[in-house]
Amino acid sequence: MDLAPSPLALPFPAMPAIEGVTLRIARAGYKRWDRADLTYAELAEGTAVAGVFTRSACPSSEVELGREQVKAGKARALVVNAGNSNAFTGYRGREAVEQIMAQVADHLGCTREEVFVSSTGVIGVPLPKDRARAGVAAVLDASPASWADAANTIGTTDTFPKGATASAIVGGTRVAIAAIVKGSGMIAPDMATMLGYIFTDAAVEPAFLQQVLSDANRRTFSCITVDSDTSTSDTVLAFATGKAGNPPLASFDSDGADAFAAALHDVCRQLAHLVVRDGEGASKFIAISVSGAVSDESAHRVAMSIANSPLVKTAIAGGDANWGRVVMAVGKAGEPADRDRLSIAFGGTWTARNGVPVEGYDEAPVAAHLKASEIEIAVDLGIGEGRATVWTCDLTHGYISINADYRS
Amino acid sequence: MDLAPSPLALPFPAMPAIEGVTLRIARAGYKRWDRADLTYAELAEGTAVAGVFTRSACPSSEVELGREQVKAGKARALVVNAGNSNAFTGYRGREAVEQIMAQVADHLGCTREEVFVSSTGVIGVPLPKDRARAGVAAVLDASPASWADAANTIGTTDTFPKGATASAIVGGTRVAIAAIVKGSGMIAPDMATMLGYIFTDAAVEPAFLQQVLSDANRRTFSCITVDSDTSTSDTVLAFATGKAGNPPLASFDSDGADAFAAALHDVCRQLAHLVVRDGEGASKFIAISVSGAVSDESAHRVAMSIANSPLVKTAIAGGDANWGRVVMAVGKAGEPADRDRLSIAFGGTWTARNGVPVEGYDEAPVAAHLKASEIEIAVDLGIGEGRATVWTCDLTHGYISINADYRS
Repeated sequence: MDLAPSPLALPFPAMPAIEGVTLRIARAGYKRWDRADLTYAELAEGTAVAGVFTRSACPSSEVELGREQVKAGKARALVVNAGNSNAFTGYRGREAVEQIMAQVADHLGCTREEVFVSSTGVIGVPLPKDRARAGVAAVLDASPASWADAANTIGTTDTFPKGATASAIVGGTRVAIAAIVKGSGMIAPDMATMLGYIFTDAAVEPAFLQQVLSDANRRTFSCITVDSDTSTSDTVLAFATGKAGNPPLASFDSDGADAFAAALHDVCRQLAHLVVRDGEGASKFIAISVSGAVSDESAHRVAMSIANSPLVKTAIAGGDANWGRVVMAVGKAGEPADRDRLSIAFGGTWTARNGVPVEGYDEAPVAAHLKASEIEIAVDLGIGEGRATVWTCDLTHGYISINADYRS
Repeated sequence: MDLAPSPLALPFPAMPAIEGVTLRIARAGYKRWDRADLTYAELAEGTAVAGVFTRSACPSSEVELGREQVKAGKARALVVNAGNSNAFTGYRGREAVEQIMAQVADHLGCTREEVFVSSTGVIGVPLPKDRARAGVAAVLDASPASWADAANTIGTTDTFPKGATASAIVGGTRVAIAAIVKGSGMIAPDMATMLGYIFTDAAVEPAFLQQVLSDANRRTFSCITVDSDTSTSDTVLAFATGKAGNPPLASFDSDGADAFAAALHDVCRQLAHLVVRDGEGASKFIAISVSGAVSDESAHRVAMSIANSPLVKTAIAGGDANWGRVVMAVGKAGEPADRDRLSIAFGGTWTARNGVPVEGYDEAPVAAHLKASEIEIAVDLGIGEGRATVWTCDLTHGYISINADYRS
């Protein structure tokens, strides 16, 4: 099945080279398709790494190994397989990952633990070792590839390549960040998976890189949802080659650490939004802001309850400013709320205030806002100072078609 | 919008008269439609009542008042308004409910607190007091109605009337239970609401009736989901007129209490299944059984995670035995699970055992099972003795059409 590009697609940005990072792609043939499906990034010696992974209780071997590997904080290479997630494949799946790690480590003369592997695609089929071996051999021999090549190659049924870039001044030195992500356009019987890779030439201590990545993840990737279903393979890795030559960032006391963290946060937010823009069947991008909650955490849970509500998402798909369904989603969130203090706005127009509809509010700007492709829903709970924003897409016939009508 | 009957519809059963219960219906005209929309049940003096209500933090006035009323345990009448949920309508909505309570109490010469009111339909529009007053006056004058009349009149966009009955021997006396329910077929901008009413001629103390109802609710209504969205109006009430003349049931030590509880549980399960069978867009009824969890509660949460997964529900809609998506839903449930002990069956055929696909399992019976309209998914977590079963329907284009394509 070939999917048309999402109506919310954005052009791939101009991306800088990151010193210490070399990209290559190859055809391993994990599925019967006419495209590159193996991505390789070679990283300079001394590259620091940090990572965040799915909280699924049933993760892939790649995730289990990656969680252990980031603890040492050192990376020399990344291998991403597309077309086979290698999840739920037992010891055979794990052997395939360890084979790839050993093959690349032998080539680079590094330890196996410095080689990171991700896989995305069909579940329950062990990654074929023979194809992996030939694919890795081919990729190690391949010419350097572009960011767009890599972004396309890590994708499965993504409908457009997704990348983001930012820069920051750190200790008088300009450092660059370039990042790619794959998201959630997937055909049955596969499942959506988010894989994100961030590369920077900044010198950053692994522990601080982990701190900055975890914080950015909490406010970006953890604030998006397409359909409430959490993958067994979700992974975001950040690699810092140190080639920019800045004094290494070790904490927020380091010169330029705030600027670096802000730039990394910015890149993560761009990537997260791009994943939503390529959500299965998405026709509208929805930002949901909750204020007045008892805490930021509570606001986040209320916002996610709204973002995951099928009735809210179908209402937006239908261009319907259905604040009744927003009330329902607030009510079911399991968080403190007072019906009679609840206020709801669409595109800046308050349609309900303090538990009752606003009499005679101007429906024209609301109707116009709902016709656009970028929707803003604001909810004020009126009982505290907590706030949060999350992002999602609408729920359309396209989602059903992608996930129910087609078989692979 | 007129919806065709659900393909999972069942015929309305033969229902016994319940001594001490008189049903009447009338046209209040809460919406512009050519149908009865006000249901009234008059209950004999001495009728005990129990109730369970939505856990929404933003409930309707009807729910707030009903929660208080059941504490006294006495009922003389039930009024159900269809076409307007009266939720999120502030003090004006509450005044409308109190007006109905007073009008019926004056007629019967009882207290206002013995008159129970439910409403279902559009949200955010105060129930019109003039129509309510005329409708109640008409219904108090109306001829007695049948169970099927009442079941049709409490419905909104339900596609078929839903009822269930059972009987039990209590202290040498046969007691009867008759019950009706409305479920989740609803057009935008309304939201799905479940209202259930159970009537019995058994003599039951209110506290014990509440105990039996709460327990049955936990194992039936609380084990169904159509789309994970919880209404602001969900209500189930049980009324016991005592006219059968059995020695009143006061606890499980009372003669026949077990039989009565079993019959009530049976009726609740039937009603709950009927609600799923009329789920918006439903084409398949799905039973999900989880065993081997660390506790029954944990098994329930894992089962609901599977039942609420859009990817699982669309896979079933497409006739796809996609156990990979079941693994995903187990993994995201936030409950203890061990990927390498997980086993999954469709229609009794195990397709994955202990974390890996079953090599060469017979696909024919699985494919045949997935083509039928009643689907069974079994999951064994392999780490404990906890078990639970929940019921849901598939997610189809019909759900999107009902909730996104049409406006009221």
